[in-house]
Amino acid sequence: MAEDESAHTPALTVVRDVPSLRRRVQAMRAAGKTVGFVPTMGALHAGHLSLVDRAQKLADAVIVSIFVNPTQFGPDEDLASYPRKDAEDWEVLSAAGIDLLFMPDADVMYPHGFQTVVRVPGVSQGLCGAARPGHFDGVATVVAKLLLQVLPDYALFGEKDYQQLAVIQRLVTDLNVPVDIVGAPTVREGDGLALSSRNAYLTEDERKIAPALYRTLKTVAGDIAKGEDAAGCCEAAVAALEAAGFSSVEYVEVRDAETLAENPAPDRPRRVLAAAHLGKARLIDNVPVP
Amino acid sequence: MAEDESAHTPALTVVRDVPSLRRRVQAMRAAGKTVGFVPTMGALHAGHLSLVDRAQKLADAVIVSIFVNPTQFGPDEDLASYPRKDAEDWEVLSAAGIDLLFMPDADVMYPHGFQTVVRVPGVSQGLCGAARPGHFDGVATVVAKLLLQVLPDYALFGEKDYQQLAVIQRLVTDLNVPVDIVGAPTVREGDGLALSSRNAYLTEDERKIAPALYRTLKTVAGDIAKGEDAAGCCEAAVAALEAAGFSSVEYVEVRDAETLAENPAPDRPRRVLAAAHLGKARLIDNVPVP
Repeated sequence: MAEDESAHTPALTVVRDVPSLRRRVQAMRAAGKTVGFVPTMGALHAGHLSLVDRAQKLADAVIVSIFVNPTQFGPDEDLASYPRKDAEDWEVLSAAGIDLLFMPDADVMYPHGFQTVVRVPGVSQGLCGAARPGHFDGVATVVAKLLLQVLPDYALFGEKDYQQLAVIQRLVTDLNVPVDIVGAPTVREGDGLALSSRNAYLTEDERKIAPALYRTLKTVAGDIAKGEDAAGCCEAAVAALEAAGFSSVEYVEVRDAETLAENPAPDRPRRVLAAAHLGKARLIDNVPVP
Repeated sequence: MAEDESAHTPALTVVRDVPSLRRRVQAMRAAGKTVGFVPTMGALHAGHLSLVDRAQKLADAVIVSIFVNPTQFGPDEDLASYPRKDAEDWEVLSAAGIDLLFMPDADVMYPHGFQTVVRVPGVSQGLCGAARPGHFDGVATVVAKLLLQVLPDYALFGEKDYQQLAVIQRLVTDLNVPVDIVGAPTVREGDGLALSSRNAYLTEDERKIAPALYRTLKTVAGDIAKGEDAAGCCEAAVAALEAAGFSSVEYVEVRDAETLAENPAPDRPRRVLAAAHLGKARLIDNVPVP
């Protein structure tokens, strides 16, 4: 980059420790700026960028974090192979015009002696919590830490990880974390597949099968809205996904859209959620009942 | 109070909800003041007032909370009978010149749907954690909430509840809560008995026996400092307390003063801690190994 260019658009700053992060946030505050925060695990796609865009509309300065959090992966899960694209992510975030990138190492987040766990037992139960024991403890703990490290005005999370969003909303309310949690709609490919860093695991053939997840959820939601039996619709959806070529279906369920309680009454906002395996990828998705 | 007097010393303000609390704290911040915070369960004694005094030396404005936290009491413990002295406490805190008293009701702290738990599993293990399962989860969760409600610069806790102080220090470090935790020495009666709201449960005869707890801990600490075997000293201490008239002894243990790990090496800072029952009162105390 030529010197005069760099004078006009300074390179995106990366900080890797909490004191540096806090100094930068304090400077933003001192300049009278509100702060928006988008925590990510990197391997950024258009879904993440929609959160950044939303944050930029809400707040004067936007901070993104990239941290592949080991405590939310189970022992047989894909921590080692989870896609890491630090250089590309930096380029994408620079182009998006964010104000600060926080990329802590694991020993910054979990130094020697670390032991605290934040649990949100109700909302974490069932759905992805059933197949991934400890996953939401890991999510709740790392998100509590990130929010308290940054202390933003707004923190943005995608609705694609709907149960995660519910866990975070609950812990922020329960612990009085002074931040507004903002959920943003899932971004999809043209054929309906929800964007996910884990889509990178799909072969070409699997990629053609994958949109059946969204199509099936839309069918369930539509049928339930018409008054059909939820349990029957979900059973049919499992069969449809298996027929479409999914290796196995973890769950297709209808839940209360706010509390995630089972068997929601028809007058409550409802959500249809699913997880299914396709080759090496575990895909999740969810849609509202209209 | 006559009108002209009240103009000079306005009455101590009590707030009972979080938005009012935050508005008051924001006004203190806007006036450029640092904030010290002393969370209590009320029934205030000179030990609490020493924390208030310390807070006033550290910070420009001091907030005290009174909340008898139900989630840190076991089902067979003394929640119902725990001493409550709201009017006297208000008088004492007014006289001490604090700036704000926060007295939330249980439904402000734990509204419908509340479910989050903060756990500090290592430091909470053993000692009081053994006989009071769930106690330190309750403490960690309510203290996390109070700290995030107030967001003070300093929060003060007595060393009398030494394991509690260690749990709080650990959770604040682990979750990056932006506050300095300050521990303050135990305040004692002339005969050595540590001040405690639960001393009110002691009969006249029991009150004469109670100082044996501190005397015995001093003996253990002195003997260990001279190189005597820790296990042997603790066993002798249990026998001494029983001989002095304690109904039962929960534990007398030597721990690492920072991590509370068992069997600390002689070159580490060490602490002798004990809990014992005397009539209706469960008394705890601790002293450093010199």
